Amino acid sequence: MDKDSNYTPTQAHSKPDFLRVRLVMVKTSEPGNIGAAARAMKNMCLSRLYLVNPKEFPSVVATARASGADSVLQDCVVCETLEQALTGCHLVIGASARQRSIAWQQTDVMGACEMIEQTLKHGDGQQEVAVVFGTENSGLSNAELDLCQVLMSIPGNPDYFSLNVAQAVQVFAYQLFNQLTQPSLKIKTIKEKTQNLASSDELNYFYQHLKKTLIDIDYMDTHRPNELLMRRLRKIFHRAQLQKDEVAIFRGILTRVDKLLK
Amino acid sequence: MDKDSNYTPTQAHSKPDFLRVRLVMVKTSEPGNIGAAARAMKNMCLSRLYLVNPKEFPSVVATARASGADSVLQDCVVCETLEQALTGCHLVIGASARQRSIAWQQTDVMGACEMIEQTLKHGDGQQEVAVVFGTENSGLSNAELDLCQVLMSIPGNPDYFSLNVAQAVQVFAYQLFNQLTQPSLKIKTIKEKTQNLASSDELNYFYQHLKKTLIDIDYMDTHRPNELLMRRLRKIFHRAQLQKDEVAIFRGILTRVDKLLK
Repeated sequence: MDKDSNYTPTQAHSKPDFLRVRLVMVKTSEPGNIGAAARAMKNMCLSRLYLVNPKEFPSVVATARASGADSVLQDCVVCETLEQALTGCHLVIGASARQRSIAWQQTDVMGACEMIEQTLKHGDGQQEVAVVFGTENSGLSNAELDLCQVLMSIPGNPDYFSLNVAQAVQVFAYQLFNQLTQPSLKIKTIKEKTQNLASSDELNYFYQHLKKTLIDIDYMDTHRPNELLMRRLRKIFHRAQLQKDEVAIFRGILTRVDKLLK
Repeated sequence: MDKDSNYTPTQAHSKPDFLRVRLVMVKTSEPGNIGAAARAMKNMCLSRLYLVNPKEFPSVVATARASGADSVLQDCVVCETLEQALTGCHLVIGASARQRSIAWQQTDVMGACEMIEQTLKHGDGQQEVAVVFGTENSGLSNAELDLCQVLMSIPGNPDYFSLNVAQAVQVFAYQLFNQLTQPSLKIKTIKEKTQNLASSDELNYFYQHLKKTLIDIDYMDTHRPNELLMRRLRKIFHRAQLQKDEVAIFRGILTRVDKLLK
């Protein structure tokens, strides 16, 4: 577990951005959900939690569920009204389990996170954002939604949708982390280990060795034409992007087989 | 709350795809996490849960936390070994809190979901995928990771990363839901040939055969420890994502070498 006093998000993760996003939980009835939300937040670099009229807070249950993210609970702001919690915000997004009537502008989590990024980017880095989560059983009331500019719905199963508020916070926090840390094209490629790749001549020596050994053990004859088989084998090893020492393993095995033939 | 007997995901949400993704929880110690994972899954259209040696299951705590997703718990498959849970799978992804050493091919949640989509799309709609989550405190062991072709890491706070296993399931399930229901928005990066992939049991038979032959030709002795060598070889073939007929080629070669020894 980290020491909370040492909690210093790296510059690479846009500390100023994350610090300008507050998460507001309204009339939360289960303190465990507050703790789980704090844990979800801190895992994704969010740290500013506002609680509007929580049923029970502070709470040992909340602290236990926070599991090391208790710094978020210690620093949280408890308010009596949602208006107080939203003071100074330039964009207020209300989370909603389901799409509501057309009275509010609506988007999904991805769209909301794009709006947040834009809001944080402009205004000389001074603009603040709030994302509001309602009470467990009933969500946000219409009066509370009136204070939100945009409604954010979380996509999911049309036949069963019953996300716990902490799970909803988790989904949002994850999506925002992605949005703020990978703003470019979001093209995710597998981080192949590409150091020390075998060179094409090393590979060709290996293929020649492989072909010779396959002929020597009489494998080739039964699998004509030979060139087609070799092409298939090359293709497989090309997909694997062999490193130098991996080629050495296979050549060692071939050398061992060669010795059997003598 | 929905009636579980009426649980019929709409056609628009690619029911067949979601039904070919199984989620495997290994040695889960807290039954509450199993329930929370079931809830997270069902919210995002996943329904196939496999439990490998759970500490306590069935459990009233799990059912309570599942909150209406108890159909997932009722239908779940309890196994004694991870191998059993992976039977018939063509792509096995292991979830890891942190990036590990270079021994495994690694990607993030988005990359993993792209691979899953590709695997589901090819192979005449018959290919199956497993995503494996380790035990609460220690994650997946190296032996368990050896059964995974790809490691999926969840991005997050570099200074505090302590996602609960159910939160990790939530993040993955959300991302997969997005991937499978909004495929047009995604930029396709992985254009691997994923038709007719070998299943994990076919691969395991191949690895067993390979290991036996390497011992028989006295290759292993000079390259202790054997398990490390086998891990390296698995990693190479996992990267190549072998198809069924490619495994058959290698097994044919091994059989030929076996005959030389007689």
